[in-house]
Amino acid sequence: MINTDICIIGAGPVGLFAVFEAGLLKMRCHLIDVLPQVGGQLSEIYPHKPIYDIPGYPSITAQELIDKQLEQIKPFDPTFTLGERVEHITKQDDGSFIVETNDHTMVHTQVIVIAGGLGCFEPRKPEIPNLHLFEGKGVDYMVKDPAKYRDKKIVIAGGGDSALDWTFHLADIAQQVTLIHRSDSFRGAPDSAEKVFKLAQQGKINLLLSHNLTNIHGNDYLSHVETTNKEKEVIATDADYFIPLYGLTPKLGPIADWGLNIDKNAIEVNTFDYSTNIERIYAIGDINTYPGKLKLILCGYHEAALMCQSAFKFVYPDQKLTFKYTTVNGINTF
Amino acid sequence: MINTDICIIGAGPVGLFAVFEAGLLKMRCHLIDVLPQVGGQLSEIYPHKPIYDIPGYPSITAQELIDKQLEQIKPFDPTFTLGERVEHITKQDDGSFIVETNDHTMVHTQVIVIAGGLGCFEPRKPEIPNLHLFEGKGVDYMVKDPAKYRDKKIVIAGGGDSALDWTFHLADIAQQVTLIHRSDSFRGAPDSAEKVFKLAQQGKINLLLSHNLTNIHGNDYLSHVETTNKEKEVIATDADYFIPLYGLTPKLGPIADWGLNIDKNAIEVNTFDYSTNIERIYAIGDINTYPGKLKLILCGYHEAALMCQSAFKFVYPDQKLTFKYTTVNGINTF
Ligand SMILES: Cc1cc2nc3c(=O)[nH]c(=O)nc-3n(C[C@H](O)[C@H](O)[C@H](O)COP(=O)(O)OP(=O)(O)OC[C@H]3O[C@@H](n4cnc5c(N)ncnc54)[C@H](O)[C@@H]3O)c2cc1C
Ligand SMILES: Cc1cc2nc3c(=O)[nH]c(=O)nc-3n(C[C@H](O)[C@H](O)[C@H](O)COP(=O)(O)OP(=O)(O)OC[C@H]3O[C@@H](n4cnc5c(N)ncnc54)[C@H](O)[C@@H]3O)c2cc1C
Repeated sequence: MINTDICIIGAGPVGLFAVFEAGLLKMRCHLIDVLPQVGGQLSEIYPHKPIYDIPGYPSITAQELIDKQLEQIKPFDPTFTLGERVEHITKQDDGSFIVETNDHTMVHTQVIVIAGGLGCFEPRKPEIPNLHLFEGKGVDYMVKDPAKYRDKKIVIAGGGDSALDWTFHLADIAQQVTLIHRSDSFRGAPDSAEKVFKLAQQGKINLLLSHNLTNIHGNDYLSHVETTNKEKEVIATDADYFIPLYGLTPKLGPIADWGLNIDKNAIEVNTFDYSTNIERIYAIGDINTYPGKLKLILCGYHEAALMCQSAFKFVYPDQKLTFKYTTVNGINTF
Repeated sequence: MINTDICIIGAGPVGLFAVFEAGLLKMRCHLIDVLPQVGGQLSEIYPHKPIYDIPGYPSITAQELIDKQLEQIKPFDPTFTLGERVEHITKQDDGSFIVETNDHTMVHTQVIVIAGGLGCFEPRKPEIPNLHLFEGKGVDYMVKDPAKYRDKKIVIAGGGDSALDWTFHLADIAQQVTLIHRSDSFRGAPDSAEKVFKLAQQGKINLLLSHNLTNIHGNDYLSHVETTNKEKEVIATDADYFIPLYGLTPKLGPIADWGLNIDKNAIEVNTFDYSTNIERIYAIGDINTYPGKLKLILCGYHEAALMCQSAFKFVYPDQKLTFKYTTVNGINTF
C-alpha cells in the first residue's frame, strides 16, 4: 500500500503543477496515469508542436513544457504509478480514501485530486476480425516498455507521429520492423516521415504503403499480419507483435461511477477551491466544468493553486495556513 | 484622442498578459501606467529576485518574466502611456468609455480592464520641511527621463536598489551625482552596492553615508540639500535636482471613486468572467477580490483569459466567438 497526502489521478500538465503547489504547502503527492509516460495530451498527442499561450513563453513545444514542469516539481519528489488506470475509490471511516488501479496498486490518501483531462486515453482499434483474440498474445496498443520487443518481429500500423516515432525507435531494438499504412503519405511530422523513408531505402525497416490491414492470424499466439495492396494482392508478414497505433481517444471511464456530479463528461466544481460534491475530492484542468470554464493549460494551473489552499485543511487539520510568496520564502524540499 | 478596443489600467504582469489573450481574439489594447516603466510590482519592487511558481519556469527573475511577456505580446503591437495616472473614466451614450489621465491623455475605448495591482504606486517622501515647495522645481520622486539630468548636479537619497541603480546610471550623464544614505550599508543588491562604493573610490560620485537629510533650500528653484553627519556637522550639497528614492507605496487612488464595488481596497468581481458591477469594466490580478482569491501572478493570467472571452461581445457585438487552441491556430498579428 502506497501512502500519500494527495493522490493525483492524471499526470498531465495540470496534475504535475498540482504537485508543485502542494509541495509549497508541504503536502506529498502520488500520481497515477494510464499512459506509460507523464504529460497527458501534450506528450501523447502533440509533443513536438509549439504552444503559444503559456504565460512567459512566446513559444514552447508541448514536450519541453512538460520537461520544465518535471524539473520544477523535482524538489518535492513526487511518486508515480504509470500505465495503470484508476478504477475504484473507497472512502475510509476517518475520511481518507483508498484508490485502486486495474493492476491492483493501492494508494492510501487524505485527498484525491482528479486531473484526468478528457478522461482515460483508450486506443482506437483497427476493425479486423480476430483482433480481440490476440490482445495480450501479440497485440499491443501502446508501447510501454520497448525492451520487450528486443530481437522480435514487429508489425506497426498507422500514419501518425506515434507510428513513425516507434518505427524508427524499435528499428534499433527489434529483429525486424514493418510499418503498414493505408495511404502513401504520413500525417506525422515531415522530418519523422523522412527518417522512416530513409530507413526503408536502407533496408532497415519494411515499409508497406497503400496497404489495407485485413486480418491477423496465429495459433493461440500471434504469428502473422495480413494486408492487401492496391493491386488487391494479399501479403502476409511474420509478426511476434502487432502494434496498431491509430491514436488514442479519451473516455471518461471509471470516473463516471464515483458519485460525482457530472455535466457533459466533466465534473462540476466550485470556483473558490475546485472541490467536487464529495468532500476531499477536487477536480482540476480539462476534466472539470464551471461557468466560464476554458479548457486551457493556464487555467488548470490557477485551479491547482486554489485547490491546494483548500486541501491543506484535510492534510494538516491542526495547522493554520499562511500564504507566502515563493520569492520571499524560497522552495523548501521535504 | 487615442482609440482602442480595450484600455488596460496597469501594465504589470497581468495587464501585459491580457494584451496577449485579447490579441488572440483580435482585440487591440492600450495600456496606461503611472510608473515610467512596465512590469508593475515585478519591475518596481523586485526585478532581480527569482520567482519559483511561474508554471514551467523552475526559476525566473521578475524582470526576465516581464521581458518574456513583452516578447510574447509583440505580435499584437500594444500601445502605452507611461508615467501617467488614470484619474477619470466617463461612460459614453453608446456604452463606450473615455479614460483620462492626470496629464490629460484621453483614450476612447470599448472596454476597460483594471489590472491596477495594489493600486497606484506613490512615492514615500522624506519628512523634511519645504519639500512640497520644490516639487516640480528640482524635487523629483521618480526618474522618468534620464536625459533631463544631463550636465546637472544631482542629489539622490536612499539605500535600496532604485537609489543604487540610478546613482551609477546617472553618474555617466550628470555633471555631479551625490548619494545620501542614513546608514553605512545598503539594502539593495550587494553587487550594485559594490559598484557604487567603487565609483565613490574613483571619485566619480560623492557618497555621504550615515548622513541624515535635514533640509532643502533654494530661491523659488532648488539650490542645495542639507544633511547632518554622525558628528552633528551640517553639510550643504549643491543640487539642481534632488531625487529621494525611498520606495513606492501603493494606494488604490482614483479607482476608489468610479462607483465600483470595493471590499478592503480590492474590486469585487464575478469568477466566470472577472467583470465588475459596471458593465464593460473588468478587474484582474491583485486588484480584484472573490471567494478563494490568491494574489498570485499565475491566477491573474487565468483571470485575463476568461475576461477576454467575455469582453469580446462588446468589441465585436455581431460576431460569434469560437474557441481555438494556439497550437492549432497559431498567432495571427493584426
Ligand atoms: C492538438 C491540441 C492542441 C492544444 N493546444 C493548446 C494550446 O495551445 N494551449 C492550451 O492551453 N491548451 C491546448 N490544448 C489543450 C491542452 O492540451 C489541455 O488543456 C491540457 O492537456 C489539459 O491538461 P490536464 O492535465 O487537465 O489533462 P490531460 O493533459 O488530458 O491529462 C490527463 C491525464 O489523465 C489520465 N487519466 C484520465 N483518467 C484516468 C484514470 N481513471 N486513471 C489513470 N489516468 C487517468 C489521462 O491518461 C491523461 O494522461 C491542446 C490540445 C490538443 C489536443
Ligand atoms: C517582494 C514580492 C515578492 C513576490 N513574489 C511573488 C511570487 O513568488 N509569486 C507570485 O505569483 N507573486 C509574487 N508576488 C506578487 C506579485 O508581484 C503580484 O501578484 C503581481 O505583481 C500582480 O500583478 P498585477 O499585474 O495584478 O499588478 P501589479 O504588478 O501591482 O501592477 C499594477 C500596476 O498598475 C498601476 N496602476 C494602478 N493604479 C493605476 C492608475 N490609476 N493609473 C495608472 N496606473 C495604475 C501600478 O502603477 C502598477 O504598475 C510578490 C510580490 C512582492 C512585493
